[in-house]
Amino acid sequence: MKIAVLGSGAMGGLFSAYLSRHHEVTVIDVNAALVDKVNAEGLEVREPDGSSQLYHPHATLSTEGMEPVDLVVVFVKAMFSEGALRNNRSVIGPDTYLMTLQNGSGHEDTLGKFVDEEHIIIGTTQHNASVAGVGVTNHGGSGITHMGCVTGSAARLQKFADAFTQCGLEADTSDGVQRMIWNKMFTNVSASVLTGILQVPLGYISQNEAAWAMCCQLIREAVDAAAGLGMEFDYDEKVAEVKAVCDRSPNGLTSIYADLRDGRRTEVDTISGSIVRAGKKGSVATPSHEFAVQMVHAMEGRGK
Amino acid sequence: MKIAVLGSGAMGGLFSAYLSRHHEVTVIDVNAALVDKVNAEGLEVREPDGSSQLYHPHATLSTEGMEPVDLVVVFVKAMFSEGALRNNRSVIGPDTYLMTLQNGSGHEDTLGKFVDEEHIIIGTTQHNASVAGVGVTNHGGSGITHMGCVTGSAARLQKFADAFTQCGLEADTSDGVQRMIWNKMFTNVSASVLTGILQVPLGYISQNEAAWAMCCQLIREAVDAAAGLGMEFDYDEKVAEVKAVCDRSPNGLTSIYADLRDGRRTEVDTISGSIVRAGKKGSVATPSHEFAVQMVHAMEGRGK
Repeated sequence: MKIAVLGSGAMGGLFSAYLSRHHEVTVIDVNAALVDKVNAEGLEVREPDGSSQLYHPHATLSTEGMEPVDLVVVFVKAMFSEGALRNNRSVIGPDTYLMTLQNGSGHEDTLGKFVDEEHIIIGTTQHNASVAGVGVTNHGGSGITHMGCVTGSAARLQKFADAFTQCGLEADTSDGVQRMIWNKMFTNVSASVLTGILQVPLGYISQNEAAWAMCCQLIREAVDAAAGLGMEFDYDEKVAEVKAVCDRSPNGLTSIYADLRDGRRTEVDTISGSIVRAGKKGSVATPSHEFAVQMVHAMEGRGK
Repeated sequence: MKIAVLGSGAMGGLFSAYLSRHHEVTVIDVNAALVDKVNAEGLEVREPDGSSQLYHPHATLSTEGMEPVDLVVVFVKAMFSEGALRNNRSVIGPDTYLMTLQNGSGHEDTLGKFVDEEHIIIGTTQHNASVAGVGVTNHGGSGITHMGCVTGSAARLQKFADAFTQCGLEADTSDGVQRMIWNKMFTNVSASVLTGILQVPLGYISQNEAAWAMCCQLIREAVDAAAGLGMEFDYDEKVAEVKAVCDRSPNGLTSIYADLRDGRRTEVDTISGSIVRAGKKGSVATPSHEFAVQMVHAMEGRGK
């Protein structure tokens, strides 16, 4: 299979490396040093057991003149998805599938600007990874990758699931992926965004009374927004799950925490912002998420 | 007139000093060094023109055994009002009036725990002051002090207005004081609270798009909460006023900014919190103020 991976951050690096085991993979990234290193030395993945391996996908800054591929996996930060796809239109043909495994929901709206609904694959993965250096990915943990469609049965995506599984990225297809995506989002849109605004570790959110009150309010509104789209989640169950995440990693630092600490732009528009957009679609008020999104943007504006 | 001033911070210091010109004033404060200094050397007020004067009210840590006074002016931070009044019940007799000129609204609810409604004086003052040292107050600017009642005509308070005016604290009575208190509060509950959360100067609020969007939302909800209590304010007018305050003092730092920067407890419960309580009384939703109050408390909890 011809696969292009858009963005070679932690997760992009991991997936391009693994997929290159049995497929023709092109890594597309805007970082010239990274592209040079991957082409010269390969992509390194360090596994949780301490072992390490080099993989050799092809890397490029520009896809100009390239032929369309079978699959483009989008792994750039979500606010860069549209620009990255626009700059790499040449690899998107009439039979090309676009896949998003990014955090947050609603990415299909962006992908839908480049292919028809039938060629969009939404999904969620349990793998996690972090960047350990240029062209070096720390593989934190493994798990299943679920693939689904925006409309229609996900069964027709079996060949993609097989292609991933064959490479060590266990995958299945499911008609409940949209719900899984939402299910995964509750912690991000409640505890995580608050760790960013407050600049505290995860444990603070469940331990501080006021922070926890805000967290519960954010979960409440997210559950309501999901219900507005026809997905029922149990509020108490979600509260217990988010609390467990906070309690389990009291010193855990989130990526939005680090982004704001370092004066970087965050992904808040595609995470908390997707709750606001879902609320609008379903006519459900999400004032706390609106406030949180604006607060994060106001913090971004201060710079470092 | 026998007057007790509860709390000798910046404003308490100024008012006790001035009122001691013609009245028997007792300064009540929990700071022993301050009490000693006022009794030994006097209270110093530095005027905007550079002049400075010493005043000699009596100061005490404890009012145990003291006789009731004619008037208690409450100038502690609002979250300490109830405790301070409880500790100094001896100066509150059946004919004693309790006056609040504190920032925020709804202080009459606290005062009402110690005297009947007829003996509550609410008000607002245009004086401003800052602490320049132990027993030393910088008088920043003067203006009128308005006194009013919770119910009934304010005319019966004329003797208190006269007592203040006589001492250089120009005062009048008005039946529109509740509205004046609210009118003064819009900047505090919108731009100011955001400068605290974002840790930025006032100018940032009108200059940053996301911060300004939050500021307008806070004004919107405050206007609605006021309407719920029967007070009509014009949203566009308030937005223009708040913007003017931000634009006029782009580098201005608010007290809530300083409190949060220095890890101190803020007055958010009596400022933004009073909008939330007003909203509840009038059945008006104030989700952004609720979120802001919790956010400030969560920030307080981090300490310095």
